[in-house]
Amino acid sequence: MPESEEISKGLEDVNIKWTRLTTIDGEKGILKYGGYSIEDIVNNNALAEEIQYLFLYGELPTMEQLKNFRKKIEEGYNVPDFVIDIIRKLPRESDAVAMQMTAFASLAAKETNFKWNKETNRDVAAVQIGRMVAITANVYRHIMGMDPVKVKPYPTEAETFLRATFGRDVTKDEIDAMNTALILYTDHEVPASTTAGLVAVSTLSDIYSGVTAALAALKGPLHGGAAEAAIAQFAEIGSVENVEKWFNENILTGKRRLMGFGHRVYKTYDPRAKIFKRIAEKLIARSEEAKKYYQIATKLEELGIKNYGIKGIYPNTDYYSGIVYMSIGFPLRNNIYTALFALSRITGWQAHFIEYVEEQHRLIRPRAVYRGPGDRKFVRIEERK
Amino acid sequence: MPESEEISKGLEDVNIKWTRLTTIDGEKGILKYGGYSIEDIVNNNALAEEIQYLFLYGELPTMEQLKNFRKKIEEGYNVPDFVIDIIRKLPRESDAVAMQMTAFASLAAKETNFKWNKETNRDVAAVQIGRMVAITANVYRHIMGMDPVKVKPYPTEAETFLRATFGRDVTKDEIDAMNTALILYTDHEVPASTTAGLVAVSTLSDIYSGVTAALAALKGPLHGGAAEAAIAQFAEIGSVENVEKWFNENILTGKRRLMGFGHRVYKTYDPRAKIFKRIAEKLIARSEEAKKYYQIATKLEELGIKNYGIKGIYPNTDYYSGIVYMSIGFPLRNNIYTALFALSRITGWQAHFIEYVEEQHRLIRPRAVYRGPGDRKFVRIEERK
Repeated sequence: MPESEEISKGLEDVNIKWTRLTTIDGEKGILKYGGYSIEDIVNNNALAEEIQYLFLYGELPTMEQLKNFRKKIEEGYNVPDFVIDIIRKLPRESDAVAMQMTAFASLAAKETNFKWNKETNRDVAAVQIGRMVAITANVYRHIMGMDPVKVKPYPTEAETFLRATFGRDVTKDEIDAMNTALILYTDHEVPASTTAGLVAVSTLSDIYSGVTAALAALKGPLHGGAAEAAIAQFAEIGSVENVEKWFNENILTGKRRLMGFGHRVYKTYDPRAKIFKRIAEKLIARSEEAKKYYQIATKLEELGIKNYGIKGIYPNTDYYSGIVYMSIGFPLRNNIYTALFALSRITGWQAHFIEYVEEQHRLIRPRAVYRGPGDRKFVRIEERK
Repeated sequence: MPESEEISKGLEDVNIKWTRLTTIDGEKGILKYGGYSIEDIVNNNALAEEIQYLFLYGELPTMEQLKNFRKKIEEGYNVPDFVIDIIRKLPRESDAVAMQMTAFASLAAKETNFKWNKETNRDVAAVQIGRMVAITANVYRHIMGMDPVKVKPYPTEAETFLRATFGRDVTKDEIDAMNTALILYTDHEVPASTTAGLVAVSTLSDIYSGVTAALAALKGPLHGGAAEAAIAQFAEIGSVENVEKWFNENILTGKRRLMGFGHRVYKTYDPRAKIFKRIAEKLIARSEEAKKYYQIATKLEELGIKNYGIKGIYPNTDYYSGIVYMSIGFPLRNNIYTALFALSRITGWQAHFIEYVEEQHRLIRPRAVYRGPGDRKFVRIEERK
């Protein structure tokens, strides 16, 4: 029997590990990666791959270190053929995150003798970042009815990904927006996806299985699905004129929850949301649809904060990110926006796994409190009523 | 910041949920499913599908209820073609559990609008049990170089599975052993696999993704891999004459751990191990190899208990289960024994998911304690040293 009968609902306030990666001050709305505030990172035009290096190695890379790191990522672009074949066997109307998950599970299938090892963990992680780029591009292309693609490296990861995905030239604005989105979703301590992956790798399962478990959690509407839910809500409202009426009828009455608002940890404006909002504002001129959604979103935000800000309920990172993805050119379908979240978050997942396995490993095995029937005597089926 | 800096290592002594399913008395070595001791269940020749019903509905089924339940399971046998195609695309030397995981991830891909619903959850779970039977049979057949199979129902699930898998007639002894193995691995409260799945479904991700996450954790050598590790150890010892020497050199010296011995919860003989041992004893006449391993295992058990029993380290469920699987006819390769564990455990996973989502749902989101660098100022790469 467990020592206590108390249940830690949602594991809230349970510390599952320590970390050097990310720190969140939910009261003040501050997010830092390894001591660097995300505003500082974004304002200095950091590249996503510099931040990935920071997560895996604890320091920002020199030019030379970044070059070598990129080589490893590029190795990963060359995904085994059977993985691409498997993606193409999935129905085209599939959920994009589950398609990524299927691809990662298939990579795990080859790991019959995976060993966590301080000498190789970071190289494996870098290769896997490259795999994720190639898998996500191919998932997108399969959904859109395009041919599979072999990923060719361009100067930055964001450009590489966008060119492989869309199969066309891309603009500096698109690359910059994609790069920032990659950075903003890199890590957020230990949400459900990271936790599911940690539980998996605590059995010393391989790193691909860890990512698979994390994707399984990210797929859920209460986690990764929030960006799509937020923009679906803007679509439903339909026009900026309708915002107030819709808000009064659906949200103020308590009938529905405001999507993209509120966060278990932040009790003020999510710092990532501020940056996404800024990028959205810059990009929306590219798309009439995104522009309309942006106008709806800002009006809705006003009403939301006016009514719920006092309770600590503010826009979270998913509120404006969908508009950014849409402005870059990604359609709102098949849960693609959540797959883009995963493309970025894989680094955080891996960095937490490595921290856990290398320095604080213990099999994760909580308990459950029994509240079922007392002793019963088995009655054979012929005699059961 | 989290309220406390204390870390719950491995979530030991943290209660993640309550349950009506399984209760373990680790001190006395008692395991009960819904109040029925597993000895009572096995001694009364219960069928695996009766126990699956007990897990999902809380009561043992009447004849009529069992008939309807079986119909749902049989629906599941008819797996979509693309799932079988995907299994066949995986390299034949793949890990069997990761192959199951890939298949379940591909089933999740179709769940673009999954809703947890009290009216349908149990039907979905029953269908999924059938899917697992068909997937596992096809995973086995692909590994062994056999054709894919459409599963045809026979009177019991154990018989159905063995006939589909081996493609031959099966004996009563084989069916009985398979049936008991299915029952013994049905559930064990909230080990890592169940916990990983719970974290995934706490985001309201679909049930297929929940099973995928659970499989990701089960694949690890510290969890599902133990049965194979135990029998691999018997193989390494090689002969009953060599047991004592091997034990003295490897275990007593502390160089290595005794596989299949010791358990986070049990501090005495695992009640499942007793039953597996009994079945193994009965079956080993069928296979010279299994017989040899059994003799090695019993001799090694003696030494293990003599030296470590006083510390509460006894054989666990995985110690003899591999010998049983081998006696039935499953080869020791590709992690197949762990896939057989999963075939059984899927019911426990699903039953815990349903309990959690229906009655005690909360997003699982623990915290991490930050122990990284203090505030740092971003330096651009050109200026970094």
